[in-house]
Amino acid sequence: MERLEQQLRFIAEVGRLKGVLRQTMLAGLARRENSAEHSWHLALMATALAEHAPPGADLGRVTQMVLIHDLVEIDAGDLFLYADAEQHERQEAAEHAAADRIFALLPADHAGQVRALWDEFNERQSPTARFARALDRLQPMLENLAVGGGSWREHGVTADQVLAKVELIEDGSAALGQLARDLVHGAVAAGILAPA
Amino acid sequence: MERLEQQLRFIAEVGRLKGVLRQTMLAGLARRENSAEHSWHLALMATALAEHAPPGADLGRVTQMVLIHDLVEIDAGDLFLYADAEQHERQEAAEHAAADRIFALLPADHAGQVRALWDEFNERQSPTARFARALDRLQPMLENLAVGGGSWREHGVTADQVLAKVELIEDGSAALGQLARDLVHGAVAAGILAPA
Repeated sequence: MERLEQQLRFIAEVGRLKGVLRQTMLAGLARRENSAEHSWHLALMATALAEHAPPGADLGRVTQMVLIHDLVEIDAGDLFLYADAEQHERQEAAEHAAADRIFALLPADHAGQVRALWDEFNERQSPTARFARALDRLQPMLENLAVGGGSWREHGVTADQVLAKVELIEDGSAALGQLARDLVHGAVAAGILAPA
Repeated sequence: MERLEQQLRFIAEVGRLKGVLRQTMLAGLARRENSAEHSWHLALMATALAEHAPPGADLGRVTQMVLIHDLVEIDAGDLFLYADAEQHERQEAAEHAAADRIFALLPADHAGQVRALWDEFNERQSPTARFARALDRLQPMLENLAVGGGSWREHGVTADQVLAKVELIEDGSAALGQLARDLVHGAVAAGILAPA
């Protein structure tokens, strides 16, 4: 198949991410967020918050990473962060199978680059990946706060559970980790989050 | 106001782009596309189609450009490409006022960078902007074809009108311009587009 034809098939296929719904409710819209617009929002955050990235993070690469990080959900769907360990394990297997299928739609050279980005995001070893993961964890917190509780309230998530997840934000950005911690304490004070 | 506070206000404000609807209907979803997920799709296209960019285009900058190009629609809304000249003139004024308001939410140094990106996109002089504009023009064509006519059919748009718009794609990429032209002819042959 010609390269352009492969590229067009990939472009059509990834469009399906617009139909993958997350738990996050959107302020003012009375509907759930989809994973395509979520990924776009993370890319805007990467640039707006660039100065809070750890030393050595490659911001262009952070952007590319957050743009593709959820493509696997086209096959695997989105799993709520607070799902149990067994569900997370099943999800991981489904996402790896999806990565194998979806990235292979691209010409091999580009497919390899996208796979490397996705693997780096999941392994969370590089400063680039640690910052990208921090953004991905912070964004739904901001959305939940904007709607007065959102998926936390809906699923009975408590502040101690949220604080356990904040550690990953701290690992990607000291400033954003501190922000997230302050936001959780503020949410408890405001009665949006139960303490435990 | 502290920089982080300004950045968070910008991030909250741009999220409203998820509620700005375009004319484009999405395949398999029975709903219109919003401008946030449209912008995300363009960013994916920029990377997938990078080899078709004109010499001198800065691909990282194309990505940043398409990610922010529609933020002004938060205030100005989306105008259908085939609206009349007077509507386009009013839209342009509304978009400039929106750019003044929305980008100014950011710290001044970053606001200036985003404004420069947006101006470059609109002026369409650089290879970077010409490629970004070509992607923005191509994507709704691909979506319309995927749903058997979409906004073309809905608004009685004909092939000669579409071909006039294809010139801007050709200006940004010879290969994508040729593709667009072939797609229009194919759509006429398939009865999806009336010739004139």
